[in-house]
Amino acid sequence: MPDPDFPPGFVSLVSAGPGDPELLTLKAARRLSQAEVVLFDDLASGPVLDHAGPQAELIAVGKRAGRPSARQEAVNALIVSHAQAGRRVVRLKSGDSGIFGRLEEELTALTQAGIPFEIVPGVTSASAAAAAMGIPLTRRLTARRVQFITGADVTGQLPGDINWAALADPSVTTVVFMGQRSFPLLAQGLIAHGLPGDTPAMFAEAVGHPGQRLLRSTVAELARLLHDQGPASQPGLILYGPLAFPPQTA
Amino acid sequence: MPDPDFPPGFVSLVSAGPGDPELLTLKAARRLSQAEVVLFDDLASGPVLDHAGPQAELIAVGKRAGRPSARQEAVNALIVSHAQAGRRVVRLKSGDSGIFGRLEEELTALTQAGIPFEIVPGVTSASAAAAAMGIPLTRRLTARRVQFITGADVTGQLPGDINWAALADPSVTTVVFMGQRSFPLLAQGLIAHGLPGDTPAMFAEAVGHPGQRLLRSTVAELARLLHDQGPASQPGLILYGPLAFPPQTA
Repeated sequence: MPDPDFPPGFVSLVSAGPGDPELLTLKAARRLSQAEVVLFDDLASGPVLDHAGPQAELIAVGKRAGRPSARQEAVNALIVSHAQAGRRVVRLKSGDSGIFGRLEEELTALTQAGIPFEIVPGVTSASAAAAAMGIPLTRRLTARRVQFITGADVTGQLPGDINWAALADPSVTTVVFMGQRSFPLLAQGLIAHGLPGDTPAMFAEAVGHPGQRLLRSTVAELARLLHDQGPASQPGLILYGPLAFPPQTA
Repeated sequence: MPDPDFPPGFVSLVSAGPGDPELLTLKAARRLSQAEVVLFDDLASGPVLDHAGPQAELIAVGKRAGRPSARQEAVNALIVSHAQAGRRVVRLKSGDSGIFGRLEEELTALTQAGIPFEIVPGVTSASAAAAAMGIPLTRRLTARRVQFITGADVTGQLPGDINWAALADPSVTTVVFMGQRSFPLLAQGLIAHGLPGDTPAMFAEAVGHPGQRLLRSTVAELARLLHDQGPASQPGLILYGPLAFPPQTA
Protein backbone atom coordinates (compact mmCIF):
# COMPACT_ATOMS: atom_id res chain seq x y z
CA MET A 1 0.00 0.00 0.00
CA PRO A 2 1.57 3.35 -1.00
CA ASP A 3 2.41 5.56 1.97
CA PRO A 4 2.66 9.29 1.16
CA ASP A 5 5.12 9.64 4.07
CA PHE A 6 7.50 7.10 2.56
CA PRO A 7 7.57 7.72 -1.19
CA PRO A 8 10.05 6.36 -3.72
CA GLY A 9 13.44 8.03 -3.43
CA PHE A 10 12.95 8.72 0.29
CA VAL A 11 15.34 7.61 3.04
CA SER A 12 14.12 6.64 6.50
CA LEU A 13 16.96 6.66 9.01
CA VAL A 14 15.63 4.07 11.43
CA SER A 15 16.96 3.44 14.93
CA ALA A 16 16.83 -0.28 15.69
CA GLY A 17 17.17 0.01 19.48
CA PRO A 18 19.62 -1.97 21.62
CA GLY A 19 19.21 -5.39 20.00
CA ASP A 20 16.22 -6.98 21.71
CA PRO A 21 13.81 -7.22 18.75
CA GLU A 22 10.92 -6.30 21.08
CA LEU A 23 12.54 -2.94 21.78
CA LEU A 24 12.00 -1.89 18.19
CA THR A 25 9.38 0.87 17.86
CA LEU A 26 6.14 0.32 15.97
CA LYS A 27 7.29 2.90 13.45
CA ALA A 28 10.62 1.17 12.87
CA ALA A 29 8.81 -2.12 12.28
CA ARG A 30 6.46 -0.44 9.82
CA ARG A 31 9.27 1.25 7.90
CA LEU A 32 11.15 -2.05 7.65
CA SER A 33 8.03 -3.72 6.27
CA GLN A 34 7.70 -1.01 3.61
CA ALA A 35 11.33 -0.73 2.55
CA GLU A 36 12.66 -1.80 -0.83
CA VAL A 37 16.26 -1.62 0.41
CA VAL A 38 17.54 -1.98 3.97
CA LEU A 39 21.13 -0.95 4.63
CA PHE A 40 22.05 -2.26 8.06
CA ASP A 41 24.98 -2.29 10.47
CA ASP A 42 26.21 -5.54 12.03
CA LEU A 43 24.79 -4.46 15.38
CA ALA A 44 21.37 -3.79 13.90
CA SER A 45 20.82 -7.18 12.37
CA GLY A 46 19.43 -10.51 13.54
CA PRO A 47 15.74 -10.88 14.35
CA VAL A 48 15.10 -7.16 13.82
CA LEU A 49 15.48 -7.75 10.09
CA ASP A 50 12.59 -10.23 10.14
CA HIS A 51 10.31 -7.19 9.93
CA ALA A 52 11.54 -6.48 6.42
CA GLY A 53 9.17 -7.65 3.70
CA PRO A 54 9.95 -10.17 0.94
CA GLN A 55 10.47 -7.32 -1.52
CA ALA A 56 13.33 -5.85 0.47
CA GLU A 57 16.94 -6.15 -0.54
CA LEU A 58 19.01 -6.45 2.66
CA ILE A 59 22.51 -5.02 2.48
CA ALA A 60 25.03 -5.31 5.33
CA VAL A 61 27.28 -2.28 5.47
CA GLY A 62 29.45 -3.84 8.10
CA LYS A 63 30.24 -1.21 10.71
CA ARG A 64 30.81 -2.41 14.24
CA ALA A 65 30.93 -0.29 17.37
CA GLY A 66 34.44 0.37 18.60
CA ARG A 67 36.12 -0.41 15.29
CA PRO A 68 37.11 2.66 13.29
CA SER A 69 35.51 2.56 9.89
CA ALA A 70 37.16 3.91 6.80
CA ARG A 71 33.98 3.26 4.92
CA GLN A 72 31.61 5.99 6.06
CA GLU A 73 31.92 7.71 2.67
CA ALA A 74 31.13 4.45 0.90
CA VAL A 75 28.04 3.98 3.07
CA ASN A 76 26.92 7.54 2.34
CA ALA A 77 27.35 6.98 -1.38
CA LEU A 78 25.40 3.73 -1.25
CA ILE A 79 22.42 5.31 0.54
CA VAL A 80 22.37 8.20 -1.93
CA SER A 81 22.59 5.96 -4.98
CA HIS A 82 19.70 3.71 -3.88
CA ALA A 83 17.52 6.76 -3.16
CA GLN A 84 18.45 8.33 -6.50
CA ALA A 85 17.40 5.10 -8.20
CA GLY A 86 13.91 5.84 -6.83
CA ARG A 87 13.80 3.17 -4.16
CA ARG A 88 12.34 3.45 -0.68
CA VAL A 89 15.39 3.12 1.54
CA VAL A 90 15.70 2.23 5.22
CA ARG A 91 19.06 2.94 6.78
CA LEU A 92 19.00 0.85 9.97
CA LYS A 93 21.34 1.86 12.79
CA SER A 94 21.64 0.28 16.23
CA GLY A 95 20.51 1.97 19.46
CA ASP A 96 19.29 5.52 18.96
CA SER A 97 20.98 6.78 15.81
CA GLY A 98 21.36 10.29 17.26
CA ILE A 99 23.64 9.08 20.06
CA PHE A 100 27.11 8.09 18.84
CA GLY A 101 25.60 6.72 15.63
CA ARG A 102 27.55 8.73 13.02
CA LEU A 103 24.18 10.08 11.94
CA GLU A 104 25.44 13.52 10.96
CA GLU A 105 27.66 12.29 8.14
CA GLU A 106 24.71 10.57 6.50
CA LEU A 107 22.37 13.53 7.04
CA THR A 108 24.91 15.79 5.38
CA ALA A 109 25.28 13.47 2.40
CA LEU A 110 21.50 13.29 1.97
CA THR A 111 21.08 17.05 2.28
CA GLN A 112 23.85 17.72 -0.23
CA ALA A 113 22.24 15.31 -2.70
CA GLY A 114 18.80 16.89 -2.14
CA ILE A 115 17.26 13.62 -0.95
CA PRO A 116 14.26 13.81 1.40
CA PHE A 117 14.56 11.86 4.65
CA GLU A 118 13.19 11.35 8.15
CA ILE A 119 14.80 10.23 11.40
CA VAL A 120 13.05 7.57 13.47
CA PRO A 121 14.40 7.75 17.03
CA GLY A 122 14.89 4.61 19.08
CA VAL A 123 15.69 3.23 22.51
CA THR A 124 19.30 3.99 23.36
CA SER A 125 21.30 1.08 24.76
CA ALA A 126 22.03 3.27 27.82
CA SER A 127 18.35 3.13 28.77
CA ALA A 128 18.21 -0.59 28.01
CA ALA A 129 21.27 -1.38 30.13
CA ALA A 130 19.89 0.49 33.15
CA ALA A 131 16.47 -1.13 32.73
CA ALA A 132 18.03 -4.58 32.52
CA MET A 133 19.88 -3.95 35.77
CA GLY A 134 16.71 -2.62 37.41
CA ILE A 135 17.93 0.93 37.99
CA PRO A 136 17.00 4.43 36.81
CA LEU A 137 19.57 6.62 35.03
CA THR A 138 18.55 9.65 37.09
CA ARG A 139 17.76 9.85 40.81
CA ARG A 140 15.66 12.61 42.27
CA LEU A 141 18.14 13.89 44.83
CA THR A 142 21.43 12.15 44.06
CA ALA A 143 21.74 12.03 40.25
CA ARG A 144 20.04 15.02 38.68
CA ARG A 145 22.27 14.87 35.62
CA VAL A 146 23.02 11.99 33.28
CA GLN A 147 25.66 12.15 30.57
CA PHE A 148 26.72 9.95 27.71
CA ILE A 149 30.28 10.00 26.45
CA THR A 150 32.35 7.98 24.04
CA GLY A 151 35.47 6.19 25.20
CA ALA A 152 36.92 6.10 21.70
CA ASP A 153 37.48 8.88 19.20
CA VAL A 154 37.88 8.29 15.45
CA THR A 155 41.30 6.77 16.06
CA GLY A 156 39.94 4.40 18.72
CA GLN A 157 41.70 6.23 21.55
CA LEU A 158 40.29 8.06 24.57
CA PRO A 159 39.37 11.55 23.29
CA GLY A 160 41.94 14.17 24.23
CA ASP A 161 39.54 16.96 25.15
CA ILE A 162 37.95 15.50 28.28
CA ASN A 163 36.12 17.84 30.66
CA TRP A 164 37.25 16.23 33.91
CA ALA A 165 35.10 18.48 36.12
CA ALA A 166 32.06 17.16 34.28
CA LEU A 167 33.14 13.50 34.25
CA ALA A 168 34.50 13.19 37.79
CA ASP A 169 31.31 14.67 39.30
CA PRO A 170 30.10 12.10 41.86
CA SER A 171 26.49 13.26 41.65
CA VAL A 172 26.00 12.28 38.00
CA THR A 173 25.30 9.05 36.18
CA THR A 174 27.77 8.66 33.33
CA VAL A 175 27.41 6.17 30.52
CA VAL A 176 30.51 5.39 28.47
CA PHE A 177 29.89 4.09 24.96
CA MET A 178 32.64 2.14 23.20
CA GLY A 179 34.80 2.51 26.28
CA GLN A 180 36.00 -0.94 27.28
CA ARG A 181 39.49 -0.55 25.92
CA SER A 182 40.14 2.94 27.24
CA PHE A 183 38.33 2.62 30.60
CA PRO A 184 41.47 1.83 32.63
CA LEU A 185 42.95 5.13 31.43
CA LEU A 186 39.69 7.00 31.93
CA ALA A 187 39.29 5.63 35.46
CA GLN A 188 42.82 6.71 36.33
CA GLY A 189 41.97 10.25 35.26
CA LEU A 190 38.64 10.24 37.09
CA ILE A 191 40.25 9.15 40.35
CA ALA A 192 43.04 11.70 39.92
CA HIS A 193 40.34 14.35 39.55
CA GLY A 194 38.61 13.37 42.77
CA LEU A 195 36.11 10.66 41.92
CA PRO A 196 36.28 8.00 44.64
CA GLY A 197 37.55 4.69 43.29
CA ASP A 198 34.74 2.89 45.08
CA THR A 199 32.07 4.77 43.10
CA PRO A 200 29.57 2.17 41.87
CA ALA A 201 30.13 1.07 38.28
CA MET A 202 28.36 -1.36 36.03
CA PHE A 203 29.48 -3.14 32.90
CA ALA A 204 26.84 -4.20 30.41
CA GLU A 205 27.92 -6.42 27.55
CA ALA A 206 25.78 -7.26 24.51
CA VAL A 207 22.77 -5.39 25.93
CA GLY A 208 19.53 -6.76 24.56
CA HIS A 209 21.31 -9.61 22.73
CA PRO A 210 21.21 -13.29 23.69
CA GLY A 211 24.67 -13.13 25.31
CA GLN A 212 23.76 -10.18 27.56
CA ARG A 213 25.95 -9.96 30.67
CA LEU A 214 25.58 -7.45 33.50
CA LEU A 215 28.28 -6.93 36.07
CA ARG A 216 28.12 -4.72 39.15
CA SER A 217 31.42 -3.34 40.29
CA THR A 218 33.23 -0.12 41.22
CA VAL A 219 35.20 2.30 39.06
CA ALA A 220 38.60 1.07 40.35
CA GLU A 221 37.69 -2.61 40.25
CA LEU A 222 36.15 -2.45 36.78
CA ALA A 223 39.25 -0.66 35.46
CA ARG A 224 41.43 -3.52 36.74
CA LEU A 225 39.07 -6.10 35.34
CA LEU A 226 38.90 -4.60 31.84
CA HIS A 227 42.66 -4.07 31.83
CA ASP A 228 43.29 -7.73 32.68
CA GLN A 229 40.65 -8.99 30.29
CA GLY A 230 42.23 -7.41 27.23
CA PRO A 231 40.50 -6.61 23.93
CA ALA A 232 36.72 -6.96 24.04
CA SER A 233 34.85 -9.35 21.83
CA GLN A 234 31.39 -7.87 22.35
CA PRO A 235 30.37 -4.22 22.44
CA GLY A 236 29.75 -3.06 25.96
CA LEU A 237 28.59 -0.08 27.96
CA ILE A 238 30.03 1.20 31.22
CA LEU A 239 27.87 3.11 33.70
CA TYR A 240 29.26 4.80 36.80
CA GLY A 241 27.94 7.18 39.42
CA PRO A 242 25.52 6.95 42.36
CA LEU A 243 23.89 3.86 40.87
CA ALA A 244 20.99 2.46 42.90
CA PHE A 245 21.90 -1.21 42.53
CA PRO A 246 19.00 -3.44 43.52
CA PRO A 247 19.45 -5.58 46.66
CA GLN A 248 21.55 -8.69 45.96
CA THR A 249 19.60 -11.92 46.12
CA ALA A 250 22.65 -14.04 46.78
CA MET B 1 -2.81 -16.48 26.59
CA PRO B 2 -0.81 -16.82 29.81
CA ASP B 3 2.69 -15.40 29.58
CA PRO B 4 5.19 -16.82 32.09
CA ASP B 5 7.08 -13.51 31.93
CA PHE B 6 4.03 -11.53 33.03
CA PRO B 7 2.28 -13.59 35.72
CA PRO B 8 -0.45 -12.42 38.09
CA GLY B 9 0.88 -10.09 40.79
CA PHE B 10 3.69 -8.84 38.52
CA VAL B 11 4.33 -5.18 37.68
CA SER B 12 5.67 -4.10 34.30
CA LEU B 13 7.06 -0.56 34.45
CA VAL B 14 6.50 0.43 30.84
CA SER B 15 8.01 3.47 29.13
CA ALA B 16 5.51 4.96 26.72
CA GLY B 17 7.96 7.03 24.68
CA PRO B 18 7.56 10.71 23.84
CA GLY B 19 3.88 10.70 22.88
CA ASP B 20 3.76 9.68 19.23
CA PRO B 21 1.93 6.35 19.50
CA GLU B 22 4.19 4.91 16.78
CA LEU B 23 7.22 5.46 19.00
CA LEU B 24 5.95 2.87 21.44
CA THR B 25 8.07 -0.29 21.46
CA LEU B 26 6.66 -3.64 20.44
CA LYS B 27 7.18 -4.84 24.01
CA ALA B 28 5.28 -1.89 25.50
CA ALA B 29 2.38 -2.56 23.12
CA ARG B 30 2.37 -6.24 24.10
CA ARG B 31 2.44 -5.52 27.83
CA LEU B 32 -0.45 -3.06 27.44
CA SER B 33 -2.45 -5.70 25.58
CA GLN B 34 -1.87 -8.21 28.42
CA ALA B 35 -2.45 -5.91 31.40
CA GLU B 36 -5.38 -6.19 33.75
CA VAL B 37 -4.69 -2.76 35.23
CA VAL B 38 -2.90 0.18 33.60
CA LEU B 39 -1.86 3.04 35.86
CA PHE B 40 -0.91 5.95 33.60
CA ASP B 41 0.36 9.52 33.85
CA ASP B 42 -1.36 12.33 31.97
CA LEU B 43 1.57 12.54 29.59
CA ALA B 44 1.39 8.82 28.79
CA SER B 45 -2.22 8.73 27.70
CA GLY B 46 -4.11 9.30 24.46
CA PRO B 47 -3.72 6.87 21.56
CA VAL B 48 -1.03 4.87 23.38
CA LEU B 49 -3.75 3.49 25.64
CA ASP B 50 -5.56 2.03 22.62
CA HIS B 51 -3.16 -0.90 22.93
CA ALA B 52 -4.75 -1.92 26.21
CA GLY B 53 -7.19 -4.80 25.89
CA PRO B 54 -10.91 -4.74 26.81
CA GLN B 55 -10.10 -6.51 30.09
CA ALA B 56 -7.88 -3.69 31.31
CA GLU B 57 -8.92 -1.21 33.94
CA LEU B 58 -7.33 2.15 33.04
CA ILE B 59 -6.48 4.40 35.98
CA ALA B 60 -5.13 7.92 35.55
CA VAL B 61 -2.73 8.81 38.33
CA GLY B 62 -2.55 12.38 37.21
CA LYS B 63 1.07 13.46 37.38
CA ARG B 64 2.23 16.05 34.92
CA ALA B 65 5.79 17.00 34.09
CA GLY B 66 6.91 20.21 35.72
CA ARG B 67 4.25 20.18 38.41
CA PRO B 68 5.42 18.98 41.81
CA SER B 69 3.36 16.05 42.91
CA ALA B 70 2.53 15.34 46.53
CA ARG B 71 1.05 12.10 45.48
CA GLN B 72 4.00 9.87 44.70
CA GLU B 73 3.35 7.86 47.88
CA ALA B 74 -0.27 7.40 46.87
CA VAL B 75 0.81 6.17 43.42
CA ASN B 76 3.28 3.75 45.00
CA ALA B 77 0.58 2.39 47.32
CA LEU B 78 -1.85 1.97 44.42
CA ILE B 79 0.63 -0.03 42.32
CA VAL B 80 1.47 -2.25 45.28
CA SER B 81 -2.16 -2.89 46.19
CA HIS B 82 -3.14 -3.90 42.64
CA ALA B 83 -0.18 -6.29 42.42
CA GLN B 84 -0.96 -7.75 45.85
CA ALA B 85 -4.49 -8.37 44.65
CA GLY B 86 -2.92 -10.69 42.07
CA ARG B 87 -3.45 -8.59 38.99
CA ARG B 88 -1.08 -8.09 36.11
CA VAL B 89 -0.16 -4.43 36.39
CA VAL B 90 1.31 -2.04 33.83
CA ARG B 91 2.65 1.20 35.21
CA LEU B 92 2.88 3.45 32.15
CA LYS B 93 5.26 6.40 32.29
CA SER B 94 6.03 8.90 29.54
CA GLY B 95 9.37 9.06 27.70
CA ASP B 96 11.98 6.67 29.07
CA SER B 97 11.02 6.02 32.68
CA GLY B 98 14.67 5.91 33.77
CA ILE B 99 15.26 9.53 32.76
CA PHE B 100 13.56 12.02 35.10
CA GLY B 101 10.62 9.64 35.51
CA ARG B 102 10.59 9.26 39.32
CA LEU B 103 11.19 5.57 38.66
CA GLU B 104 13.28 4.96 41.75
CA GLU B 105 10.51 5.72 44.24
CA GLU B 106 8.29 3.10 42.61
CA LEU B 107 11.10 0.53 42.37
CA THR B 108 11.80 0.98 46.07
CA ALA B 109 8.13 0.54 46.99
CA LEU B 110 7.93 -2.65 44.89
CA THR B 111 11.15 -4.06 46.33
CA GLN B 112 10.04 -3.33 49.90
CA ALA B 113 6.73 -5.06 49.25
CA GLY B 114 8.50 -8.03 47.66
CA ILE B 115 6.67 -7.62 44.34
CA PRO B 116 8.37 -8.89 41.18
CA PHE B 117 8.73 -6.38 38.36
CA GLU B 118 10.47 -5.55 35.10
CA ILE B 119 11.43 -2.26 33.46
CA VAL B 120 10.64 -1.76 29.77
CA PRO B 121 12.83 1.06 28.47
CA GLY B 122 11.53 3.52 25.90
CA VAL B 123 12.44 6.32 23.53
CA THR B 124 13.39 9.39 25.55
CA SER B 125 11.79 12.65 24.41
CA ALA B 126 15.34 14.06 24.05
CA SER B 127 15.97 11.64 21.16
CA ALA B 128 12.55 12.36 19.69
CA ALA B 129 13.03 16.13 19.80
CA ALA B 130 16.40 15.93 18.04
CA ALA B 131 15.02 13.52 15.44
CA ALA B 132 12.05 15.79 14.76
CA MET B 133 14.44 18.70 14.15
CA GLY B 134 16.62 16.54 11.90
CA ILE B 135 19.74 16.66 14.05
CA PRO B 136 21.89 14.17 16.00
CA LEU B 137 22.46 14.62 19.74
CA THR B 138 26.15 13.84 19.38
CA ARG B 139 28.57 15.03 16.70
CA ARG B 140 31.75 13.18 15.89
CA LEU B 141 34.18 16.03 16.43
CA THR B 142 32.17 18.84 18.02
CA ALA B 143 29.80 17.21 20.53
CA ARG B 144 31.33 14.08 21.97
CA ARG B 145 29.28 14.36 25.14
CA VAL B 146 25.54 14.75 25.60
CA GLN B 147 23.92 15.44 28.96
CA PHE B 148 20.37 15.57 30.26
CA ILE B 149 19.49 17.76 33.22
CA THR B 150 16.33 18.86 34.93
CA GLY B 151 15.46 22.54 35.18
CA ALA B 152 13.22 21.98 38.18
CA ASP B 153 13.92 20.25 41.48
CA VAL B 154 11.18 18.88 43.74
CA THR B 155 10.15 22.44 44.66
CA GLY B 156 9.92 23.45 40.98
CA GLN B 157 13.00 25.68 41.19
CA LEU B 158 16.34 25.47 39.39
CA PRO B 159 18.41 22.95 41.40
CA GLY B 160 20.96 24.62 43.67
CA ASP B 161 23.87 22.23 43.05
CA ILE B 162 24.64 23.00 39.43
CA ASN B 163 28.02 21.97 38.00
CA TRP B 164 28.63 25.04 35.84
CA ALA B 165 31.84 23.70 34.31
CA ALA B 166 29.82 20.77 32.97
CA LEU B 167 26.84 22.82 31.80
CA ALA B 168 28.64 25.78 30.26
CA ASP B 169 30.88 23.51 28.15
CA PRO B 170 30.43 24.68 24.54
CA SER B 171 31.37 21.29 23.09
CA VAL B 172 28.44 19.41 24.59
CA THR B 173 24.80 18.98 23.67
CA THR B 174 22.67 19.65 26.75
CA VAL B 175 19.00 18.76 27.02
CA VAL B 176 17.01 20.47 29.76
CA PHE B 177 13.89 18.63 30.92
CA MET B 178 11.15 20.59 32.70
CA GLY B 179 13.18 23.73 32.24
CA GLN B 180 10.95 26.34 30.61
CA ARG B 181 10.31 28.32 33.74
CA SER B 182 13.87 28.35 35.05
CA PHE B 183 15.70 28.70 31.73
CA PRO B 184 16.13 32.50 31.93
CA LEU B 185 17.99 32.00 35.25
CA LEU B 186 19.94 29.01 33.91
CA ALA B 187 20.96 30.92 30.77
CA GLN B 188 22.18 33.84 32.90
CA GLY B 189 24.43 31.46 34.83
CA LEU B 190 25.66 29.71 31.69
CA ILE B 191 26.65 33.00 30.07
CA ALA B 192 28.32 34.18 33.30
CA HIS B 193 30.33 30.97 33.24
CA GLY B 194 31.56 31.53 29.71
CA LEU B 195 29.01 29.97 27.37
CA PRO B 196 28.51 32.35 24.43
CA GLY B 197 24.97 33.79 24.38
CA ASP B 198 24.75 33.01 20.67
CA THR B 199 25.19 29.28 21.25
CA PRO B 200 22.50 27.50 19.21
CA ALA B 201 19.44 26.52 21.24
CA MET B 202 16.23 24.76 20.37
CA PHE B 203 12.89 24.67 22.09
CA ALA B 204 10.66 21.65 21.53
CA GLU B 205 7.13 21.80 22.86
CA ALA B 206 4.75 18.84 23.06
CA VAL B 207 7.23 16.54 21.30
CA GLY B 208 5.45 13.71 19.52
CA HIS B 209 2.01 15.14 20.30
CA PRO B 210 -0.34 16.76 17.79
CA GLY B 211 0.59 20.29 18.96
CA GLN B 212 4.33 19.71 18.48
CA ARG B 213 6.26 22.96 17.97
CA LEU B 214 9.97 23.26 17.22
CA LEU B 215 11.80 26.54 17.51
CA ARG B 216 15.42 27.24 16.60
CA SER B 217 17.06 30.00 18.54
CA THR B 218 20.11 30.85 20.66
CA VAL B 219 20.66 30.56 24.41
CA ALA B 220 20.27 34.31 25.03
CA GLU B 221 17.31 34.76 22.70
CA LEU B 222 15.43 31.73 24.02
CA ALA B 223 15.92 32.95 27.60
CA ARG B 224 14.30 36.27 26.67
CA LEU B 225 11.49 34.54 24.83
CA LEU B 226 10.63 32.15 27.66
CA HIS B 227 10.87 34.98 30.18
CA ASP B 228 8.41 37.10 28.19
CA GLN B 229 6.12 34.19 27.46
CA GLY B 230 5.46 33.40 31.12
CA PRO B 231 4.22 30.10 32.54
CA ALA B 232 4.18 27.25 30.03
CA SER B 233 1.02 25.43 29.11
CA GLN B 234 2.69 22.45 27.46
CA PRO B 235 5.71 20.48 28.63
CA GLY B 236 8.79 21.36 26.62
CA LEU B 237 12.42 20.47 26.18
CA ILE B 238 15.32 22.83 25.66
CA LEU B 239 18.44 21.74 23.77
CA TYR B 240 21.58 23.85 23.52
CA GLY B 241 25.12 23.33 22.30
CA PRO B 242 26.81 22.95 18.91
CA LEU B 243 23.53 21.90 17.29
CA ALA B 244 23.76 21.08 13.59
CA PHE B 245 20.56 22.83 12.52
CA PRO B 246 19.51 21.74 9.04
CA PRO B 247 19.64 24.38 6.29
CA GLN B 248 16.62 26.70 6.40
CA THR B 249 14.29 26.27 3.48
CA ALA B 250 12.76 29.73 3.84
